[in-house]
Amino acid sequence: MQCVPLACFQVIRCRAAVAWAPGKLSVEEVEVAPPKAGEVRIKLVATGICRTDEHLLQGCFPNAEFPVIPGISSHTGMWRMQLLISEPQHLLPDKTTRFSCKGKQIHHFLWVSTFAEYTVVPEYTVAKIDAAAPLDKVCLFGCGFSTGYGAAINTAKVKPGSTCAVFGLGGIGLSVVMGCKAAGASRIIGVDINKDKFAKAKELGATDCINPRDFQKPIQEVLTEMTGQGVDYSFEAIGHKDTMIAALASCNMSTGVCVMIGELDSGSEISIDPTLLLTGRTWKGTVLGGSWKTRECIPKLVSSYLEKKFNSDLLITHTLPFAKVNEGFELLRAGKSIRTVLLF
Amino acid sequence: MQCVPLACFQVIRCRAAVAWAPGKLSVEEVEVAPPKAGEVRIKLVATGICRTDEHLLQGCFPNAEFPVIPGISSHTGMWRMQLLISEPQHLLPDKTTRFSCKGKQIHHFLWVSTFAEYTVVPEYTVAKIDAAAPLDKVCLFGCGFSTGYGAAINTAKVKPGSTCAVFGLGGIGLSVVMGCKAAGASRIIGVDINKDKFAKAKELGATDCINPRDFQKPIQEVLTEMTGQGVDYSFEAIGHKDTMIAALASCNMSTGVCVMIGELDSGSEISIDPTLLLTGRTWKGTVLGGSWKTRECIPKLVSSYLEKKFNSDLLITHTLPFAKVNEGFELLRAGKSIRTVLLF
Repeated sequence: MQCVPLACFQVIRCRAAVAWAPGKLSVEEVEVAPPKAGEVRIKLVATGICRTDEHLLQGCFPNAEFPVIPGISSHTGMWRMQLLISEPQHLLPDKTTRFSCKGKQIHHFLWVSTFAEYTVVPEYTVAKIDAAAPLDKVCLFGCGFSTGYGAAINTAKVKPGSTCAVFGLGGIGLSVVMGCKAAGASRIIGVDINKDKFAKAKELGATDCINPRDFQKPIQEVLTEMTGQGVDYSFEAIGHKDTMIAALASCNMSTGVCVMIGELDSGSEISIDPTLLLTGRTWKGTVLGGSWKTRECIPKLVSSYLEKKFNSDLLITHTLPFAKVNEGFELLRAGKSIRTVLLF
Repeated sequence: MQCVPLACFQVIRCRAAVAWAPGKLSVEEVEVAPPKAGEVRIKLVATGICRTDEHLLQGCFPNAEFPVIPGISSHTGMWRMQLLISEPQHLLPDKTTRFSCKGKQIHHFLWVSTFAEYTVVPEYTVAKIDAAAPLDKVCLFGCGFSTGYGAAINTAKVKPGSTCAVFGLGGIGLSVVMGCKAAGASRIIGVDINKDKFAKAKELGATDCINPRDFQKPIQEVLTEMTGQGVDYSFEAIGHKDTMIAALASCNMSTGVCVMIGELDSGSEISIDPTLLLTGRTWKGTVLGGSWKTRECIPKLVSSYLEKKFNSDLLITHTLPFAKVNEGFELLRAGKSIRTVLLF
């Protein structure tokens, strides 16, 4: 992502992927109005495809409005969270849109909408990064990668020498594995029911990988036996109630920290035995930004990437031209991609 | 509490309060056997009456066995927690009892049993404190006071200048108030449906006290409006599901920390909307010891008391001779006492 001040404050005609209704995206020519006070118009170079976009297309967000231009990756994050949960998120803060297509107003998504060659966002939501950064790689940092990596580094504050368990080895879970490794964890146990994910997890830092289906007992008991008293930190990167409770029960009863990263469907409730917490465990949650303070932290994350403190490139399994955005979503739905990057 | 090495390793006959069955205590003459290897026999000088003892008498602990000598206050804490939750707790670690009465074996309670002039406990569960400490005052530190004070100091790690809300202004809640004040909180909001408790709370450090029944809206909304974005730390010292959720929702959605201190009945479940956590809140629990490492921390707590860093004496509303132990429980049940101390 790059901020390009435009000399010309005129309407720009460009390509964007529009969801006219829940379901599929159409690549259309859209009009992008000039930014108003406190806003910036951004030229997109690359964007990732995020599962949150898929959730939008599946109609999971009751507050979202169609037609809409999705796309939240490649953009900076923390402030979005509140919108996702409580506020209408389909217009900019002044309650109007900058997008139109075929004479119709098109909604924004979470004040981001990166599935367009140009988008307009509040100025305070963007960060300037090192010009040397390859945009087709660091575009992951706007959402998916930093969510998982940040969950380990910022939310859990994993300590050197500690033991971690990561439930779910998709893009977020693998980013958690990288975060745990960067933080110096001595043991990182990946948990997934798909053993095909184990090789990549081990390449990125997992020391053990286990499949709950290989055991006759609950996975929290397996992890407690493997580690003596449970792990120091557990992470849930799936979004299922059962694995959230298993992750909580897997960490040390006196000092363990469990971080939930997955999204549940809106309105879902999760029921726990409070003694899981009363013994001394800590339960935290994080969405989207992994507790990053975006303007400060995204540039630092880019610097760490350039210093090779982690290799997030290994998460990018596919790079497609923007026109193939629907193909990118097909890969996601089929479980064939970890992260797909779209190039404009 | 004081450790008195006994030269004579004989059975001691002394008074103790025995619960022959759930319900009432009888003061009886009991036999206390000498300690085995790794144990110490202790002469009791004073003990507090704890609500956990009342829960035992009410039959709330399915693992407890009768007849039993209750009493957990005036004793040191953290290790008890695991017993309370998962293990049989009515015998010493070697699976035998040191108590008998009228030819019958009497059970221990949580390896403590302070309602006796002499008790036997594992050696590693006792701590040596400053000899200048008044035992009829610092006996509170074995349980109730340190649970609440420690929840603020150790579990939440309240920061100077922060805003706190304390749900429930009984003995534990008032101890939380003291802990928040000692940690330098700038605003401490007490929450209770009994306004008679407000004067004591303010004396101990509460800056505001509110009664949920005075408002037409949920108390979490009231607290959020009072503080802008919710409190930095919230504490639940009641043990009700509804107040546990209200306390969680009352703290800042991005950075708030909620600590549950109350006990729920065994087997109770609590159902929450996970978005309460996914926005960034932290939920912790603590029982009995307030995350103290007992052998190190109880002596320090006594030193802080002697240095007048807090005044826990204000929690002691009644002091009774040991023979009036049932009167002490009546005061507790009638809500007339904060803490009652029994003197041997």
